[in-house]
Amino acid sequence: MKNLQVNGERLWDTIMETAKFGGTEKGGVCRLTLSDTDRQVRDWLARECESAGCTVSIDEMGSIFARRPGKVDTLPPIAIGSHLDTQPTGGKFDGIAGVLSGLEVLRTLNEAGHTTSAPLELIDWTNEEGSRFTPPMLASGVFSGVFEHDFAYASEDRDGKKFEAELARIGYRGERKCPDHKLGAYFELHIEQGPVLEKEGILIGAVTGMQGQKWYEITVTGQDAHAGTTPMPARHDAMVACARMVESIQAIALNHAPLAVATVGHVVVKPNSRNVVPGSVFFTVDLRHPDEDVLLQIDRELREMVDATARDSGVEARLVNNWNVTPMEFDRECINHVRSAAEKLGYSHRDIISGAGHDAVYVARVAPTGMIFIPCENGISHNELENTKPEFIAAGASVLLHAILACDEARNKTTR
Amino acid sequence: MKNLQVNGERLWDTIMETAKFGGTEKGGVCRLTLSDTDRQVRDWLARECESAGCTVSIDEMGSIFARRPGKVDTLPPIAIGSHLDTQPTGGKFDGIAGVLSGLEVLRTLNEAGHTTSAPLELIDWTNEEGSRFTPPMLASGVFSGVFEHDFAYASEDRDGKKFEAELARIGYRGERKCPDHKLGAYFELHIEQGPVLEKEGILIGAVTGMQGQKWYEITVTGQDAHAGTTPMPARHDAMVACARMVESIQAIALNHAPLAVATVGHVVVKPNSRNVVPGSVFFTVDLRHPDEDVLLQIDRELREMVDATARDSGVEARLVNNWNVTPMEFDRECINHVRSAAEKLGYSHRDIISGAGHDAVYVARVAPTGMIFIPCENGISHNELENTKPEFIAAGASVLLHAILACDEARNKTTR
Repeated sequence: MKNLQVNGERLWDTIMETAKFGGTEKGGVCRLTLSDTDRQVRDWLARECESAGCTVSIDEMGSIFARRPGKVDTLPPIAIGSHLDTQPTGGKFDGIAGVLSGLEVLRTLNEAGHTTSAPLELIDWTNEEGSRFTPPMLASGVFSGVFEHDFAYASEDRDGKKFEAELARIGYRGERKCPDHKLGAYFELHIEQGPVLEKEGILIGAVTGMQGQKWYEITVTGQDAHAGTTPMPARHDAMVACARMVESIQAIALNHAPLAVATVGHVVVKPNSRNVVPGSVFFTVDLRHPDEDVLLQIDRELREMVDATARDSGVEARLVNNWNVTPMEFDRECINHVRSAAEKLGYSHRDIISGAGHDAVYVARVAPTGMIFIPCENGISHNELENTKPEFIAAGASVLLHAILACDEARNKTTR
Repeated sequence: MKNLQVNGERLWDTIMETAKFGGTEKGGVCRLTLSDTDRQVRDWLARECESAGCTVSIDEMGSIFARRPGKVDTLPPIAIGSHLDTQPTGGKFDGIAGVLSGLEVLRTLNEAGHTTSAPLELIDWTNEEGSRFTPPMLASGVFSGVFEHDFAYASEDRDGKKFEAELARIGYRGERKCPDHKLGAYFELHIEQGPVLEKEGILIGAVTGMQGQKWYEITVTGQDAHAGTTPMPARHDAMVACARMVESIQAIALNHAPLAVATVGHVVVKPNSRNVVPGSVFFTVDLRHPDEDVLLQIDRELREMVDATARDSGVEARLVNNWNVTPMEFDRECINHVRSAAEKLGYSHRDIISGAGHDAVYVARVAPTGMIFIPCENGISHNELENTKPEFIAAGASVLLHAILACDEARNKTTR
């Protein structure tokens, strides 16, 4: 088993096959949760898993569990999962690469005639994207106790269609309770959705955790004034104050390089007229860092800077911290299984922090969890142009395979 | 005549009397050009001017000319003018203070029994504001040859009503050609619409000219990116580049203190989503300075700064200069008449540049012209809160009176 590798060509072809379900003219995929194309890809997955010797079952959140028996079938399964739903103008790889790499692992083990000690389980989590039904990571969230079952069922799309009704409509309101079993471990492969691996020419990211996040809304209030008759020193220009704050936010993030990121993404200027000095600017700040202590330090620096800049600029500023996510770390052993698998296969690898949320982040609350990142083109994701290379996915899937095998072996030793 | 002063109380009362035509609950005035309230105030003005011994006539642009005979009635009249139309949520003084100070000058001269050598003419120019019919300063523009008569007549309001038809509807499509006579000189009193006089505690501004103006549209193009997964050095953040440019524009203006003003008033960020690094920002720049050479120097600095900042920020920037106004200077003698009148009356005064357009700016093309500014509260204008003090208007009107008298005397000497 030592040098076993997945069939990269078959894996790539499989991804291209599923890209037809909701494929767009520009080469992307539009496969919204519980749509007809979602049903098509689910039906396809169930058939393929059954062909690979798995028992397929559906839980009440519509998540698909394909179980491959283990030697000791009473052990909690080692799971591989991700999602097959996409953004409205999504790509062919986000989530999909993870589910289908899992399928390829099962196929490869079948060909190699290897049975793991624990059963294996391939999972397609419902509604990871959150584009049609909010919030994102809904099914893995219910599975992990983050969301209530009733809360999820009541979620509505823009047309007022309920999550529960749409589940039933496409035939995926399953019998199994969510959750009704424990996972022995959980692994997820995903494209990085950022530029780090590609830029550094590294094949495998061993994901060590997810960064923490803080959202702010800042309202700067100065005074509207005539652009022609108001001398510079007499102005209370909310836009100039906002510009100073944007620059300082950039500086604060760079002060906590390389892991801190800060973004001013949403800006609304009033009255937004070319010959009126702006009296008010509303803008948002998105701050992320993997270390909660550093995040709190950045929070303090942000608040002090906003107060000082407002004072120096002759304006008032109100800061509201309207959303927080605490940083999380994946399981040390699972991370090590990923690192060791890359090492064994001779692939370049590095530790990396996930900048975005994934099903694995929620599952990590109830099972030892690890994640594998592979490079994607220009870091572009949530976009029809999203792209990666067959050799990257093949490498990632082989690492997934060996991480699973190592995990199975380690757990077998422990439970023996 | 040396110590003759206007009746400040009567002038203030007259202004308050006209504020009833279109008066708003908040104490402002809504008197759009050629509306029924505009007709009411015009009818009122014509009656008052006739009571003051003037002959009232209307030109084809609807401007009102109230002529007070001179000793040498063949001399071109010395005119005083401004406008009685307002912004939709305008104040009681913008334009109005100028017309009614002129009326007060005529009343004061009547009481003093003084007849000037040249005839005097009080003018209410149609459509200075440009709120209902664009462009602003329409009638003084046609009078001065800036606009064609047909162009003005074809102007439509938002409901598709034509300027010409509305002139006829309110009975102010006059018989006189526009223009059908020369003005010997022209004086206009106006609230400053800026904070300078009030802040410095100065009563009279002798307006030396109008600053030049340049408008720009700048489009910064970077790349949309995920706010969580894109490290700071990998970003092409259009908002950060815009912020740097806004700060530098501020610095460039301050470099040319005290007369340069620069405003970024209109900003549009795309995609304007709080967790996406902005890929594009559009913003405008409004630059003003009274000296064309300095304006051109600022223009060069702006262009160099935009190019350099774009380069340093890893974005592209496109700058379009989409509007230009050349600075203009008022007539030296007229400016001197204003300065001397303030001096004679013992009023504090200073030279000042007009930051905004006025009828006088167009009339200056066809007649020697001077302007008088008086302080207004907090520099606020085009607003129902617009305010000034009775003593400021009285002082301004007395300066207007003596400037007219000095001008008449000087011209009489010249023409003798």
